[in-house]
Amino acid sequence: MRFYDDIEVGDVRRSDEYRISKSEIVEFAEKYDPQPFHTDEAAAENSVFGGLVASGWQTAAICMRLHVESSEDTATQAGVGVDDLRWHRPLRPGDSLRLRNEIGDKRPSESDPSRGFVTTYHDGLNQDDELVISYEATAMVRRPSEE
Amino acid sequence: MRFYDDIEVGDVRRSDEYRISKSEIVEFAEKYDPQPFHTDEAAAENSVFGGLVASGWQTAAICMRLHVESSEDTATQAGVGVDDLRWHRPLRPGDSLRLRNEIGDKRPSESDPSRGFVTTYHDGLNQDDELVISYEATAMVRRPSEE
Repeated sequence: MRFYDDIEVGDVRRSDEYRISKSEIVEFAEKYDPQPFHTDEAAAENSVFGGLVASGWQTAAICMRLHVESSEDTATQAGVGVDDLRWHRPLRPGDSLRLRNEIGDKRPSESDPSRGFVTTYHDGLNQDDELVISYEATAMVRRPSEE
Repeated sequence: MRFYDDIEVGDVRRSDEYRISKSEIVEFAEKYDPQPFHTDEAAAENSVFGGLVASGWQTAAICMRLHVESSEDTATQAGVGVDDLRWHRPLRPGDSLRLRNEIGDKRPSESDPSRGFVTTYHDGLNQDDELVISYEATAMVRRPSEE
């Protein structure tokens, strides 16, 4: 298990790739982000995107999945927040997304010695190595119990 | 249609309520955030949450849905980014979420006179009026075409 104390600023991890289909884009958007450029191919043609694109929140959710898969050994207790989330370019049907994570900062909790806060920079890249999404996420990570 | 020029800083909108079920929490998490405190009731009992909770990204996605529903008249072209996203308390099975939006800032695009940028403060509240999630979202909004 990778505890708070084992994590070092500058540590980098790379995830596997996730390929998104048109039906997944539409299914997510109909439930969570029903804007025409996410749900309706014809309407999307006339949008600023020129075609169907994934909801930005689905792009972020896929990054979360890739992050969980590539950090399964980490003693994460809870997410705290996200800063500087930017959608740089859209994710389209058939595109792939993969994640590059870098530990940006860590600090022990002042109120609870059993945990610390870790901030990770996330870059989501497509199959052409272009930046799709970026953000900084902060999570609480457990420290090993002293026995 | 509510264009960029019709939007005023300080405008407030309130959404309807969205009630989340246990099966929705598990279904989302198995696909996008497979951490035990989102997918496994027994493991969640022993987590810092003391029970199953929704993925923070699902909470954000529900806010997006509530935002789209309460802003259907707005000429939104695309999301740009999100700042200061914080998860204040968890959303549990059977909890409800509703959104309070306030226009925080607007500025015309310097490169494209056909649009402007609008920043909206989002507060997601549960059935007891407690803050669950908050963030600032910036979107591009179309200006009326001059003919």
